[in-house]
Amino acid sequence: MGVLTTLFQCAQSPFLKGRQIFRCLSLNISTRVDCSGILSPVATPFNNDESINFDKLAENLDEWNKTDLKGYLVQGSNGETVSLSTEERLLLIKQARTFIPRNKILLAGAGCEGTMNTIKMCEEMAAAGADAVMLVSPSFYKSGLNDRSLIHHYSAVADRCPLPVFLYSVPAYTGVDLSVAAIRTLSQHPNICGIKDSGGDVTKLAALVHVTAGNNFQVLAGSAGYLLAALHVGCVGAICGLANVLPRELCQLFDLFVATTSGTAHAAASEALSLQRRLIEPNSAVTKTLGVPAMKFAMDIMGYYGGPTRSPLLPLLADQQEAVKTLFNEFL
Amino acid sequence: MGVLTTLFQCAQSPFLKGRQIFRCLSLNISTRVDCSGILSPVATPFNNDESINFDKLAENLDEWNKTDLKGYLVQGSNGETVSLSTEERLLLIKQARTFIPRNKILLAGAGCEGTMNTIKMCEEMAAAGADAVMLVSPSFYKSGLNDRSLIHHYSAVADRCPLPVFLYSVPAYTGVDLSVAAIRTLSQHPNICGIKDSGGDVTKLAALVHVTAGNNFQVLAGSAGYLLAALHVGCVGAICGLANVLPRELCQLFDLFVATTSGTAHAAASEALSLQRRLIEPNSAVTKTLGVPAMKFAMDIMGYYGGPTRSPLLPLLADQQEAVKTLFNEFL
Amino acid sequence: MGVLTTLFQCAQSPFLKGRQIFRCLSLNISTRVDCSGILSPVATPFNNDESINFDKLAENLDEWNKTDLKGYLVQGSNGETVSLSTEERLLLIKQARTFIPRNKILLAGAGCEGTMNTIKMCEEMAAAGADAVMLVSPSFYKSGLNDRSLIHHYSAVADRCPLPVFLYSVPAYTGVDLSVAAIRTLSQHPNICGIKDSGGDVTKLAALVHVTAGNNFQVLAGSAGYLLAALHVGCVGAICGLANVLPRELCQLFDLFVATTSGTAHAAASEALSLQRRLIEPNSAVTKTLGVPAMKFAMDIMGYYGGPTRSPLLPLLADQQEAVKTLFNEFL
Amino acid sequence: MGVLTTLFQCAQSPFLKGRQIFRCLSLNISTRVDCSGILSPVATPFNNDESINFDKLAENLDEWNKTDLKGYLVQGSNGETVSLSTEERLLLIKQARTFIPRNKILLAGAGCEGTMNTIKMCEEMAAAGADAVMLVSPSFYKSGLNDRSLIHHYSAVADRCPLPVFLYSVPAYTGVDLSVAAIRTLSQHPNICGIKDSGGDVTKLAALVHVTAGNNFQVLAGSAGYLLAALHVGCVGAICGLANVLPRELCQLFDLFVATTSGTAHAAASEALSLQRRLIEPNSAVTKTLGVPAMKFAMDIMGYYGGPTRSPLLPLLADQQEAVKTLFNEFL
Repeated sequence: MGVLTTLFQCAQSPFLKGRQIFRCLSLNISTRVDCSGILSPVATPFNNDESINFDKLAENLDEWNKTDLKGYLVQGSNGETVSLSTEERLLLIKQARTFIPRNKILLAGAGCEGTMNTIKMCEEMAAAGADAVMLVSPSFYKSGLNDRSLIHHYSAVADRCPLPVFLYSVPAYTGVDLSVAAIRTLSQHPNICGIKDSGGDVTKLAALVHVTAGNNFQVLAGSAGYLLAALHVGCVGAICGLANVLPRELCQLFDLFVATTSGTAHAAASEALSLQRRLIEPNSAVTKTLGVPAMKFAMDIMGYYGGPTRSPLLPLLADQQEAVKTLFNEFL
Repeated sequence: MGVLTTLFQCAQSPFLKGRQIFRCLSLNISTRVDCSGILSPVATPFNNDESINFDKLAENLDEWNKTDLKGYLVQGSNGETVSLSTEERLLLIKQARTFIPRNKILLAGAGCEGTMNTIKMCEEMAAAGADAVMLVSPSFYKSGLNDRSLIHHYSAVADRCPLPVFLYSVPAYTGVDLSVAAIRTLSQHPNICGIKDSGGDVTKLAALVHVTAGNNFQVLAGSAGYLLAALHVGCVGAICGLANVLPRELCQLFDLFVATTSGTAHAAASEALSLQRRLIEPNSAVTKTLGVPAMKFAMDIMGYYGGPTRSPLLPLLADQQEAVKTLFNEFL
Repeated sequence: MGVLTTLFQCAQSPFLKGRQIFRCLSLNISTRVDCSGILSPVATPFNNDESINFDKLAENLDEWNKTDLKGYLVQGSNGETVSLSTEERLLLIKQARTFIPRNKILLAGAGCEGTMNTIKMCEEMAAAGADAVMLVSPSFYKSGLNDRSLIHHYSAVADRCPLPVFLYSVPAYTGVDLSVAAIRTLSQHPNICGIKDSGGDVTKLAALVHVTAGNNFQVLAGSAGYLLAALHVGCVGAICGLANVLPRELCQLFDLFVATTSGTAHAAASEALSLQRRLIEPNSAVTKTLGVPAMKFAMDIMGYYGGPTRSPLLPLLADQQEAVKTLFNEFL
Repeated sequence: MGVLTTLFQCAQSPFLKGRQIFRCLSLNISTRVDCSGILSPVATPFNNDESINFDKLAENLDEWNKTDLKGYLVQGSNGETVSLSTEERLLLIKQARTFIPRNKILLAGAGCEGTMNTIKMCEEMAAAGADAVMLVSPSFYKSGLNDRSLIHHYSAVADRCPLPVFLYSVPAYTGVDLSVAAIRTLSQHPNICGIKDSGGDVTKLAALVHVTAGNNFQVLAGSAGYLLAALHVGCVGAICGLANVLPRELCQLFDLFVATTSGTAHAAASEALSLQRRLIEPNSAVTKTLGVPAMKFAMDIMGYYGGPTRSPLLPLLADQQEAVKTLFNEFL
């Protein structure tokens, strides 16, 4: 682990962090833990008595290693991680490491409910040979899991984790959706280098790319269903369960996307993406956040007649007006 | 209305319906009610006493008419339609018609909770001068609004409506999300020619484009937040509230999208889109629909070792196995 | 309407409002619009062509009038109100009035989405012969329907409505759940005299009884499924769809409840209810509102050892600590 | 454990199971693990460095032991169980056992996500000295956690668990709500003897009491907010977080409830409860399950005029008609 650890520690330094290494439309720049591309969240093979079948794990990985997969997430949602004991989790990483070549990334799922338990698991995952950890959000005490406590949790873990940390938001399973604001804050932590967001909200993915720009932070889609759209809004890659089954097709889709945004189309694509990003926050304000009263107020700002809404909709409060003004100022 | 009505009746004939006029990546083919591009869901201007200000409506439309907006939705969600009386709704369409040139589309929001009320409203909207109607889904009796009753509702209305019909699904306001299956069925009705889907689920938009292909059915995004992604998965346009405020920027984004998918990039973009579409249903099966048991079963099909899941996850039932086999058969 | 209107105007005066007429465990005190007991939300009878069948309405009401039903809600959710035109709604109330004797209450459903539309409907319902109106909450612009706008809406309507107003919260249909705080505020309006809450949350019903005590405000359950529990926590009656079908059984259940809380059991029942009510707010604070950190803090207050929580759960903020102290102070 | 284990094994025998020991309105019959009354879900005391403080646990239990609490749930939601390591969980039960007298019940929270992990935890909890286990539902793979897999999970655990098993449904934390149908099936298992349901739906609690009658199955409320209502619909007790703070008040509320249903009021209370239970299923059918079409159909059955609904609501299908007929047959 010696040399590798050193490299990761470099990767976490503020100096390197400050550099914008990842670019949504030019994905081929190497980095220490560069997840641009397609990764597979590996299914855990069981025997019929539900014990782990390590031989089959080796066979599967041998096949997948022949593809262009960028790497593997061992112990994601698709790995039935929650049905493994702690001992099995560590053994599984150790074994997987022996089957995964060094040019493919091994992300280890290391999230637990408690902060203390998660720190301990991260340390053990590092010792077991993982390249980085992916931390599913805590989920049980939903009313207590606000931005404040989630930022505390992830920061405390990232401070002590010997490996680079990826966040993981999967509301369909956890009922907890990491907010754009919390992710923006966490993206500034030198040891947090990306997120897998499986919520399926492409608008949110685009917003994440936008607000974390400059923080050397990789936004990864969490499902193949919206892979193309996610890449078009700036995600650098994806970790999708379907890669267990159709790894070649997903790598092909990634390559096709790269082709569509190269050459003469590149400039237009960049400009389109830039414009789309600038529109997301103003749009949210006049739709789901503040709704019609904000839209009419913005119309007034832009020289149209917005005027009052009809009751029960009420005029914006003063601070809401200021917020809308700020958002639309750049379009005047 | 005479000539126009005749044209619409042609558009509804099975003969014309059978032709695939709309193409996601070549949007410039004219049609009778072609909503490819950006439409604005017009805000209803009120005076301070909450009465309608028709002068301001005229002024706003004059400004918007100078842009490349394809047309207008009068009485969408952003129009505070639910706060208008029936008399006001009809008057508003009549007035808007006088301010909207014939080369811009006038879609009239005509949805009501009841089927009978909706049919009557459609007839009156036609008489008031609308080019087509957009029908928000009923929403009150949520437990009674399943595919069966929604298909009945929309078919009954479309059978009797003198104008082309667009569906409108906006779950954030209605709590009702028109299903892909219901929309697929309804897309075959000769007088139903598109949908505005404001759910924000780009995977669903891609699926809609996929399953309605060949039915001359236009899928329109419902918000600017995911406009670019929606266009990349095959939507022909969008109706977004932000167009009340930033119509030029949205039209520019649309044009940029068209530019990125023309020329040398076109073939790759088409291929990428085609591949993305083929992956959506298999992906849904192994993720949200049937989950890990299906993913492991699909792995077995594709020559990997999937094997059993661990309890509490159970093996697929026989019919679920057949469904997965069917979905993955084409990748063998 | 003359005499009746005068009586209602008395009922709305601050003087009478100040008197606590309704008591959860002594329901037999008369009042001007006293809904203690069981009311039926009348189904609207249609012919097979979906037109209204007024003869059948008369027949049904004749049967129901023979029971102990306290009155009728005409145009509640069960009346398919949303499928009626405005003209039909008014005609239906006029006709129902002729079939309903003066000793049975006629509540007219008069809620519309917009405030202006609702005021107009209330005036017309009064002219049509209703004794009071029941106003379902607006529901469309969910993000705009907060306590502030809902209090504005209901207050504006109640100010102008010539009849006593009942609130109506039915989140299963509307997606909007009137909050305890908003209802508490509205219960102080002299012309708002009760609520039908169909959310099915008995804890909320008990809280409503508690916070509106002294405001001459009637809390009515909205379904037969939890009728007995609702009466035991202080509801004065219920408006339940099942009363269309089994009016006698529901009236019998009401009578049985009254019997269980009379005589020797009365004192214990009153004391139990009083204690239950005092526990609701402290309980909410240490469970769903603030959770384990609040519970441990309250333990410290009460002389137990609460101490810190484990991360990711964080200590209470200062103002949260104060709130918990206030709630538990009375138990020291 | 020797004698105690023997007794529990008796308690699990089909013979004893067949006897109806628990009665909602006569709660004083002893049984081997009789949870009628109030139990406290014990908070886990931590030091400031988040390690467990066993001295404070002893002090708290000494105080609580002086009250009428029936027993303790160690490692419920309020115990921050998810933030404990496996080793800590076992040690905590061992320590708690030494502080809890034999006449107070020690329920150990032993639920884990996986079936295998849960079985192992149950065995270890038995060795650590628990009287019974309480098993929170699995929650991660929500789409895979249907009645079928949940019944499989709980049955597999109960088959192998050396202690009596209580189910635990807490949807606010898990997002999984054990269904009435699944609980009914599981209540027939000889080693499953009750449930803590924290969903707050008193109608569901009443339904659970109804459908598990005769199976020697204890329905326990999960929060103090609806304690009184829950007792009135037949729950035998409650496990509520507030008991950490106000144990005497909750025991007093329980005693007051018993007083209100004794003596002359007993017969009426029993009859009321019996009638309420008979109405729950018919009511559900005509409200949330099948809605207005079912209500109108039931009106026809009962001799009123129901007739057709108005579109978009459709007539009941044949099998739905049969189901409604069956439910209302007993009221004819």
